[in-house]
Amino acid sequence: MKLIIINGPNLNLLGKREPEIYGSASFDDFFKELQLQFKTIELSYYQSNIEGEIIDKLHEVGFDYDGVILNAAAYTHTSVGIGDAVKGIETPVVEVHISNIHAREEYRHKSYIAPNAKGVLFGFGLKGYELAIQSFL
Amino acid sequence: MKLIIINGPNLNLLGKREPEIYGSASFDDFFKELQLQFKTIELSYYQSNIEGEIIDKLHEVGFDYDGVILNAAAYTHTSVGIGDAVKGIETPVVEVHISNIHAREEYRHKSYIAPNAKGVLFGFGLKGYELAIQSFL
Amino acid sequence: MKLIIINGPNLNLLGKREPEIYGSASFDDFFKELQLQFKTIELSYYQSNIEGEIIDKLHEVGFDYDGVILNAAAYTHTSVGIGDAVKGIETPVVEVHISNIHAREEYRHKSYIAPNAKGVLFGFGLKGYELAIQSFL
Amino acid sequence: MKLIIINGPNLNLLGKREPEIYGSASFDDFFKELQLQFKTIELSYYQSNIEGEIIDKLHEVGFDYDGVILNAAAYTHTSVGIGDAVKGIETPVVEVHISNIHAREEYRHKSYIAPNAKGVLFGFGLKGYELAIQSFL
Amino acid sequence: MKLIIINGPNLNLLGKREPEIYGSASFDDFFKELQLQFKTIELSYYQSNIEGEIIDKLHEVGFDYDGVILNAAAYTHTSVGIGDAVKGIETPVVEVHISNIHAREEYRHKSYIAPNAKGVLFGFGLKGYELAIQSFL
Amino acid sequence: MKLIIINGPNLNLLGKREPEIYGSASFDDFFKELQLQFKTIELSYYQSNIEGEIIDKLHEVGFDYDGVILNAAAYTHTSVGIGDAVKGIETPVVEVHISNIHAREEYRHKSYIAPNAKGVLFGFGLKGYELAIQSFL
Amino acid sequence: MKLIIINGPNLNLLGKREPEIYGSASFDDFFKELQLQFKTIELSYYQSNIEGEIIDKLHEVGFDYDGVILNAAAYTHTSVGIGDAVKGIETPVVEVHISNIHAREEYRHKSYIAPNAKGVLFGFGLKGYELAIQSFL
Amino acid sequence: MKLIIINGPNLNLLGKREPEIYGSASFDDFFKELQLQFKTIELSYYQSNIEGEIIDKLHEVGFDYDGVILNAAAYTHTSVGIGDAVKGIETPVVEVHISNIHAREEYRHKSYIAPNAKGVLFGFGLKGYELAIQSFL
Amino acid sequence: MKLIIINGPNLNLLGKREPEIYGSASFDDFFKELQLQFKTIELSYYQSNIEGEIIDKLHEVGFDYDGVILNAAAYTHTSVGIGDAVKGIETPVVEVHISNIHAREEYRHKSYIAPNAKGVLFGFGLKGYELAIQSFL
Amino acid sequence: MKLIIINGPNLNLLGKREPEIYGSASFDDFFKELQLQFKTIELSYYQSNIEGEIIDKLHEVGFDYDGVILNAAAYTHTSVGIGDAVKGIETPVVEVHISNIHAREEYRHKSYIAPNAKGVLFGFGLKGYELAIQSFL
Amino acid sequence: MKLIIINGPNLNLLGKREPEIYGSASFDDFFKELQLQFKTIELSYYQSNIEGEIIDKLHEVGFDYDGVILNAAAYTHTSVGIGDAVKGIETPVVEVHISNIHAREEYRHKSYIAPNAKGVLFGFGLKGYELAIQSFL
Amino acid sequence: MKLIIINGPNLNLLGKREPEIYGSASFDDFFKELQLQFKTIELSYYQSNIEGEIIDKLHEVGFDYDGVILNAAAYTHTSVGIGDAVKGIETPVVEVHISNIHAREEYRHKSYIAPNAKGVLFGFGLKGYELAIQSFL
Repeated sequence: MKLIIINGPNLNLLGKREPEIYGSASFDDFFKELQLQFKTIELSYYQSNIEGEIIDKLHEVGFDYDGVILNAAAYTHTSVGIGDAVKGIETPVVEVHISNIHAREEYRHKSYIAPNAKGVLFGFGLKGYELAIQSFL
Repeated sequence: MKLIIINGPNLNLLGKREPEIYGSASFDDFFKELQLQFKTIELSYYQSNIEGEIIDKLHEVGFDYDGVILNAAAYTHTSVGIGDAVKGIETPVVEVHISNIHAREEYRHKSYIAPNAKGVLFGFGLKGYELAIQSFL
Repeated sequence: MKLIIINGPNLNLLGKREPEIYGSASFDDFFKELQLQFKTIELSYYQSNIEGEIIDKLHEVGFDYDGVILNAAAYTHTSVGIGDAVKGIETPVVEVHISNIHAREEYRHKSYIAPNAKGVLFGFGLKGYELAIQSFL
Repeated sequence: MKLIIINGPNLNLLGKREPEIYGSASFDDFFKELQLQFKTIELSYYQSNIEGEIIDKLHEVGFDYDGVILNAAAYTHTSVGIGDAVKGIETPVVEVHISNIHAREEYRHKSYIAPNAKGVLFGFGLKGYELAIQSFL
Repeated sequence: MKLIIINGPNLNLLGKREPEIYGSASFDDFFKELQLQFKTIELSYYQSNIEGEIIDKLHEVGFDYDGVILNAAAYTHTSVGIGDAVKGIETPVVEVHISNIHAREEYRHKSYIAPNAKGVLFGFGLKGYELAIQSFL
Repeated sequence: MKLIIINGPNLNLLGKREPEIYGSASFDDFFKELQLQFKTIELSYYQSNIEGEIIDKLHEVGFDYDGVILNAAAYTHTSVGIGDAVKGIETPVVEVHISNIHAREEYRHKSYIAPNAKGVLFGFGLKGYELAIQSFL
Repeated sequence: MKLIIINGPNLNLLGKREPEIYGSASFDDFFKELQLQFKTIELSYYQSNIEGEIIDKLHEVGFDYDGVILNAAAYTHTSVGIGDAVKGIETPVVEVHISNIHAREEYRHKSYIAPNAKGVLFGFGLKGYELAIQSFL
Repeated sequence: MKLIIINGPNLNLLGKREPEIYGSASFDDFFKELQLQFKTIELSYYQSNIEGEIIDKLHEVGFDYDGVILNAAAYTHTSVGIGDAVKGIETPVVEVHISNIHAREEYRHKSYIAPNAKGVLFGFGLKGYELAIQSFL
Repeated sequence: MKLIIINGPNLNLLGKREPEIYGSASFDDFFKELQLQFKTIELSYYQSNIEGEIIDKLHEVGFDYDGVILNAAAYTHTSVGIGDAVKGIETPVVEVHISNIHAREEYRHKSYIAPNAKGVLFGFGLKGYELAIQSFL
Repeated sequence: MKLIIINGPNLNLLGKREPEIYGSASFDDFFKELQLQFKTIELSYYQSNIEGEIIDKLHEVGFDYDGVILNAAAYTHTSVGIGDAVKGIETPVVEVHISNIHAREEYRHKSYIAPNAKGVLFGFGLKGYELAIQSFL
Repeated sequence: MKLIIINGPNLNLLGKREPEIYGSASFDDFFKELQLQFKTIELSYYQSNIEGEIIDKLHEVGFDYDGVILNAAAYTHTSVGIGDAVKGIETPVVEVHISNIHAREEYRHKSYIAPNAKGVLFGFGLKGYELAIQSFL
Repeated sequence: MKLIIINGPNLNLLGKREPEIYGSASFDDFFKELQLQFKTIELSYYQSNIEGEIIDKLHEVGFDYDGVILNAAAYTHTSVGIGDAVKGIETPVVEVHISNIHAREEYRHKSYIAPNAKGVLFGFGLKGYELAIQSFL
């Protein structure tokens, strides 16, 4: 089983940025733990701050991976393009957010990705990525 | 660990109502499987079509259970009262929906529960309840 | 032929409440006249002020009655749950209102039931129930 | 008793246009059946695609007919002028739609006629005209 | 000086329709008085319930009359077409309403004609036509 | 003089729920003090988390009590049905809220009860009930 | 006959401010001409930039003058208080604007005065004041 | 204890203006009765039609009085400035309205003062001022 | 191949009306050039200012022509009826506008025709009609 | 004559993505056909999923090409930046969409490019690119 | 060079009111420092809580001063009249706010002054006044 | 002191694009002047048309520079991602716009950056960059 985690803008700051919301762990450390936890899965990771590069990556993996775990961060709420990419590919996509986006600003309640996703989960902190992987098992 | 699943209106019709959206399994059968799967957890189940009875149940379990898995169905989108109950109790609540509510009518995108929930997940079918339980482990 | 009239909140006050809008006849008296008028139909009647009890009743009759005549009154405009119940059952539902809801407050123009109803009629006073029965003949 | 059915734009296409919504009967055939069914009523019929001609006809019949059955079709949702005509005449008007307008586009939920109508009914197919006649009996 | 009064839908009912708002005088009688009052002006009058005929009339008079006094009634609030005609012709147009449209329904506060009119006046009853004529002197 | 205090959803949690907003006194203790303070008044108390039971109670007391003090809590903002009940009964109703609802979420600024109430007061803490009683003296 | 013209904020700049919209005549000069034109009328004039002073003046003249000609300028669109004053006095008020407010910003289309005015006229330049006086004759 | 009643625009017309809404008593007479009723309180009274003078008065009393009873009338709904003043001073402010503002126009439902007030009450007629004083005892 | 161009309100003024937007050519002259350019096509032309006549014409040609080129002008933005006609007929319709409707007023961005059209093009001046014809080749 | 076709996000998936909406031809094949069809034109092609690269390309060609044919896909509806680029360059831009964007989600009806484009066309499938080229001839 | 700082409502409370937002310095002290810092500029200062007095002052200085630094505080968001005054005078106006108005309530994001201002700056604390002066150098 | 100016999309066209709004100076020339003017400051400059590259740059400088002067141009109004980056870094950011964005389209009044910025200034032309630098001194 081949899965990929794709993280969007500012998530490279994880551990540095607003730790009261996102926690103080760096995503790289966390990813290594995830790989240990799910040894039978071929798990890869990609991060970009550029909307179009996320689209490129979705195209690249979207026809032979078994699943995408996508935290598009800020682009979730504004990117028709990523939403279209999710709809256009064949691999199922699970949308994840670390924080509870419905407990934050109104504009973070809207997702262009959700309607095309296999499932959506948010508010569970980093554990959300783990749950997303489990949803593919 | 004591967890309870609380289901809201029309979920007693599961297996009968709109099977193309909700699947054809009855929730009772599914619940038995869940209990088998999570034997170490004291897992109970409650369903009501009455908004106020869901509030009553949240009050009843909300100060000594370890977690509530709440699928308030239609009341999710209209019930300030259930939202207040979730906020008012101490037990953490995970909001679950079987279908992808963001792929349906606009008024199903709004949740009065989400801002007060520990986490939210939807679109995973019945497997969503399983993921919700795992979020408490 | 088995039909049921289900009345929602405050309709038990009929004849007492705002008679300039709803008339001064009690619904029980009127229902007896209806039974006399439609002797060949097995006609029953249910009223509740509780949203969830109306859902319960719809579930109960919704798979073997030939028709439901539903005046959900105030819940018409706010109850996603009753709308879902109407959609979830198999018996066709005709939505009735005694007063002309489009000649009243803006929020009474919205119905969560109508999109799922077989037909809708309002403004005809109590005669609306009679027309609703005729629609099933 | 003198009643008139007034049909608005595109209803002359009935039987030809979108039969999955409006059925495949032509209105003229249907009208003949109605006349047979209600032999004691002097029943006439008028159709126009022109908003102002519908207003003209409402003025013409609006002070000595016993009732108007008005299906203004598309003009229902946009014509302040027909709404004003209905309000300005003395003959009571029943608003009819063949399809369930609340199960279609949002802009078809608004009616400029309804607030001034004696009653409104929709979703019953052609049988709606029959119910409208019965509402005058 | 050549002026024309153009009246829109339902104004032919004046004196008959809702006399508590529009008064009980017929417009023809009133027009004769106006002609007597303004003898030096070549004053004509046109009424139609058909939006497109009002456009036709505006085109006809719009390049050699000295002024148009337009009470488009209900079309005021919905007709982009009449607004475009007023903008497209060269003769200045004064918009008149008999009743105080800002004391009535919200949708009567909007005018597609006003932005293109030389001036607007309403609420003065039939005297408004007289003031409109004076505005051209 | 017969007065009744009717409290809506989650107010049974008073003293337990969000004490920083609602204070830490239980309502039962407070009610006993109120009875002592207003000995000449026949003062009773009812609480329910079920919307329809609040409607039932309003019907029950609404034709022979001298006044109702209603804190419908969350239902204030969503219940057309309770608003209709307040309008339908004869006993005057004073709407009370413990917290300042205008200093909280936007959706708590709307009340379906207020337009039909004799008076409204909020933000005074539990003292608001006392002021409401005084308003009937 | 006693009439008063009340002008609101920035109208003291007339002749100086945005002459392409308001013309280059000073209002004082224009007022003298008006007095010459309507010699039989006791015509006075008041201007203030202060909302509350306009309310004061309306109170002062509002019970014994025969008419008020009110150009509240910017306050037209924002002052509930002046609207209340116009409603609260007995003297009829005609609302005037020099420019065509419907050809300008959206927020100038709203008037808190209009619903309570005897009549409204705008777009006629300074001649609008003359027409307003004639409306009282 | 030093309290002040501050009344806003048009309240000086009390007894004269729209007596069907506000009653026919003059506020001065009523104020004398209030002083007699609450002899132990140093009670003063201020009224102005000018928004900025109400702000001035709030500043003047806002740091040594024990309470302000503020009926800002029309300014309630439009004055960010008075709302800021209420927030900026230290003396607690109770907002009062004589009429039931939620039974009137939509724009009267909004208050810029309420979020910063100690409490709000309306609809009790002049008795509302008495209740406001009692709220400080 | 049989095609028809149908032009809506005010397009008969072409060459006369607002030439800075629509150019100074008359449509009749232009139509002759079009016929010369597309000699193999049976090309006809119809114009009306009356909404219902455009509907009539669409019905007339809508079942045996090969294509309709429809510039409904102002009716584009307000006519549910023409939109319904386009949907109801079988001949494909291309929507054309001479000016760039998205560079003009907000209300010209909405089209009731577009969702039912084969294609839409605007902003190309008269050349748009030529492109529309080419779209059928 | 030098023209360039610029395609935005996900259009590289053409032939693969949602073929029921976009057809199953790859754009490269189609582009070769276009070059054959318009041999006298120097026609080039660019595609990127990155918003800023589309802006870069518009800057690059925007001062010496004769025309740009821009299908910005999802960015059409959200990119103020591409709209600004189209406005900032001198080369005229024709906006093209393959599908009928007005027959799809509401948010696809809005275009930040259209107001600055020479012309807009959509719904013609790939033939739209051909028509766009013809618009420059 | 003659500049004037005009401060609006509640800014006289500076140093006293909400010091966590506005700082604890009094404006008079700060103004003296400013005068020392910009010795070559004739710098004056005016404050009023009355909207109309701010308009009066703008008129007074608006034709011979070299610049106005205007912090209209609460009136910024509601005063069409001050906006009109800024537009009507000739002296350029720089709009200043001490706090970051975009980090506060939604209604503070709107400014009627900004569209007519030479420039706008906010969020810099009292230093904003200094920057505003430098913008005129 | 280390400061950086970051310019967003289309600002590389400065001097070329819409010179009536943005002036005809190229930014590079202007930047050299700035460096001369502020010799003691280590001043650098970055421009990109790619949203994600601006985020990258903010991350790069955001933990050791003393200040960022950010003109995100079009991305200001649409980029949640840049707003999040500004919030996530530690270096204070001043938002600058050359033109008066409140005198332009409505959608340019919204800024996702402003709520997280140290200060905001716009409308001062290129001088705005100079003022922004001074705000850090």
